[in-house]
Amino acid sequence: MKSLLRFCFKKYKMNYTQLFNLIKRKKSFLCVGLDSDIEKIPSFLKKFDDPVFEFNKSIIDATIDFTVAYKPNLAFYESRGVKGLESLQKTIDYLNSFGDNIFTIADAKRGDIGNTSKQYAKAFFEVFNFDAITIAPYMGKDSVSPFLAFKDKWVVLLALTSNEGASDFQYFQNASSTKLFQEVLYKSQQWSTKENMMYVVGATKAEALSEIRKTIPDHFLLVPGIGVQGGRLEEVVRFGMNDKCGLLINSSRAIIFASSDEDFAKRAGEKTFELQKQMEILLSENKII
Amino acid sequence: MKSLLRFCFKKYKMNYTQLFNLIKRKKSFLCVGLDSDIEKIPSFLKKFDDPVFEFNKSIIDATIDFTVAYKPNLAFYESRGVKGLESLQKTIDYLNSFGDNIFTIADAKRGDIGNTSKQYAKAFFEVFNFDAITIAPYMGKDSVSPFLAFKDKWVVLLALTSNEGASDFQYFQNASSTKLFQEVLYKSQQWSTKENMMYVVGATKAEALSEIRKTIPDHFLLVPGIGVQGGRLEEVVRFGMNDKCGLLINSSRAIIFASSDEDFAKRAGEKTFELQKQMEILLSENKII
Repeated sequence: MKSLLRFCFKKYKMNYTQLFNLIKRKKSFLCVGLDSDIEKIPSFLKKFDDPVFEFNKSIIDATIDFTVAYKPNLAFYESRGVKGLESLQKTIDYLNSFGDNIFTIADAKRGDIGNTSKQYAKAFFEVFNFDAITIAPYMGKDSVSPFLAFKDKWVVLLALTSNEGASDFQYFQNASSTKLFQEVLYKSQQWSTKENMMYVVGATKAEALSEIRKTIPDHFLLVPGIGVQGGRLEEVVRFGMNDKCGLLINSSRAIIFASSDEDFAKRAGEKTFELQKQMEILLSENKII
Repeated sequence: MKSLLRFCFKKYKMNYTQLFNLIKRKKSFLCVGLDSDIEKIPSFLKKFDDPVFEFNKSIIDATIDFTVAYKPNLAFYESRGVKGLESLQKTIDYLNSFGDNIFTIADAKRGDIGNTSKQYAKAFFEVFNFDAITIAPYMGKDSVSPFLAFKDKWVVLLALTSNEGASDFQYFQNASSTKLFQEVLYKSQQWSTKENMMYVVGATKAEALSEIRKTIPDHFLLVPGIGVQGGRLEEVVRFGMNDKCGLLINSSRAIIFASSDEDFAKRAGEKTFELQKQMEILLSENKII
């Protein structure tokens, strides 16, 4: 049934305009991070064959009306080996059964030499059939290009991340005071367009966003760090929104672990609804809807 | 049976001295890259339930006497989804059945925020039980530290890679002409020691090795790019070997795809034996054995 659904619905791919339309339709630019740590999901789910998939399915059902994107982080699936990948496969199949009602991002932070990145692209764009994948830029152009070869699929390149260690190398700067993350923005624009590349910019660096917008006014930014990591929604919008919204704001733990009880999905839904309402106001204030 | 073998043999972990002893015992510092692309393995293997595992097992049996390390690249397993991870699990279980006769590296190039990297560390050091994992440094210290918390497990940090795109960011330099890959070497030494960190340095940059050795005289270097990528063994040894060898030289395609016929394992064994003989001479010339 699930693979049938996949065939029925997953003929679409989502380009820039379609993503913008989805944002307007749902009045939301929220991405829910499915960092579904098996140690943290409600214990009553353990009775199911695949507790993580049951958890994800309930979260998705409760939040999909208020959400434009889902972003499973691969680490939380790989940490359970083959079983974890089975949970991931079921989760993406389920997401894909919603057709063009959702955008999907594999938070995988991959990147390898060309022939190897080609295999990763196959894994995430064909086998798992995600719309987008996060990529680490350290190995340069030929580590990213194989992903860009897929029409209407997206690379989400790490630029400025939200973690403490971001300052170790991302702020490393040359004699003209260009920082590494800026160099990543400059160079990667020669490889791609706003139609197939987004950038990760941490919400904890909201003030850096207006600077970044000078370099990439039109690109979508995937902004993690809202919620547990302490970024503020209004600030991110003030500095980062453009006339096509241009933002996907991610929240993971604050939504999916809003409750550790039987009401976890309901609470996740409420939390997501709250965020969607705030986003609707911000989209309206910025004359996008 | 395989998990029994795992319990019997995989009580060891391999520290710096033990790895050096393994090199002396086998008179080899060769790492075989198990980039086992299902499209490239001999077609007669397709009759098996798990052709990739059968391929790997045959390659391992034919090469293990001349090899100190194996390095499956995750991309070639993830590109087959759940089935690929099953092949990987069987491969690492089989490798681990050889106990302290082999060092294993997950070529995964991971790296994420702290709580997420912790999950990757669990995946590769506990679930799959590799000795080492390759890590991309872009996200800095807290993306690497969770891996370093495992005693006698290793991080292999990307410094200077062997691909064309290496020049895009790894040579980005500050006002004092310190390049990014050098900054990675400097900073990461504050987080770790030669006992739990190695570095990837591409063989295509052999002349850079002597410079790198000034910064990290004692660390092991994992050197890809011998063979198909065109690096030269003697040059790498001249510029990179130290008194504890300090080198693991990787060859993937030139060994595992030496033949695409029924004799693939035999040919891989011969190729590996040739390299081991060259390495034995070089170890002897450098008074290591």
